[in-house]
Amino acid sequence: MTGWEAHCTLCPMIQNSETYMEMALLEAQSAAERGEVPVGCVIVDGDSGDVLARAGNRTEELDDPTAHAELLAIREASSKAGSARLTGCDLYVTLEPCAMCATAISFARIRRVYFGAYDPKMGGVEHGPAIFAQPTCHHSPEVYGGLHESAAAELLKVFFRERR
Amino acid sequence: MTGWEAHCTLCPMIQNSETYMEMALLEAQSAAERGEVPVGCVIVDGDSGDVLARAGNRTEELDDPTAHAELLAIREASSKAGSARLTGCDLYVTLEPCAMCATAISFARIRRVYFGAYDPKMGGVEHGPAIFAQPTCHHSPEVYGGLHESAAAELLKVFFRERR
Repeated sequence: MTGWEAHCTLCPMIQNSETYMEMALLEAQSAAERGEVPVGCVIVDGDSGDVLARAGNRTEELDDPTAHAELLAIREASSKAGSARLTGCDLYVTLEPCAMCATAISFARIRRVYFGAYDPKMGGVEHGPAIFAQPTCHHSPEVYGGLHESAAAELLKVFFRERR
Repeated sequence: MTGWEAHCTLCPMIQNSETYMEMALLEAQSAAERGEVPVGCVIVDGDSGDVLARAGNRTEELDDPTAHAELLAIREASSKAGSARLTGCDLYVTLEPCAMCATAISFARIRRVYFGAYDPKMGGVEHGPAIFAQPTCHHSPEVYGGLHESAAAELLKVFFRERR
């Protein structure tokens, strides 16, 4: 894990990463408008920069506890790629992935994970089971946390405040 | 976690459980015949005994790293139930769930998990991140391991031996 702030802000990789995270934030915003917990995800071919999949949470709409943004995006991207392995692909998600999604990210052989807000309660990367640090984890992506953190956290805060 | 051998073998609950695990073994066998890692899963309404979903691995067929037997069964059962929560339902699976599936089982509020073979390499219940024992795990089902363990393990052993 490398903190976002450790990077040079002039790096072109970071500028691209910010654009992809902004796409993920739009997916999160759309999820909120559908009454879903606002989390969005984008999967990108790391070499070409092509967006392979973008998704927001749909657990309520689909009555599906597994329909987190990351899982939906992985299923879409792997279906498009014609392979269960997304080697060389990068995943952008507005919230630290839970243990379910982190394990799916490992199975999919994702190259890099960029996430927005940290999630001490449900997170499975920096918190809880810390999936990628487990000795039984067969593939650990590079992880960059805190990218557009405040925008991602604000979406969640507004969503839950309005529902209380 | 309670070892299977700790139960009284005359208990009617166990006899029913064995029947459901036999169904899960049939799903695992079908998966092997499709060239998939032989793992099968059945989800049952714990009160009525109705089978809500049965599935085998389909990761190869669907090019989907998330298409484990348990995830497919949870998606089918929750869709049928019209709810992302399968409260009062029991899940039978021939292999110890991985961390992805264990977390999905927790999200789905499954009541009891019965599994066949233990999985020291990829398991996420008794091994690795031990998902249900994590302080951040919000729902932990009752877990019974080792039900029809040798039959479940034999299916996997034959499958991998033939592919070497």
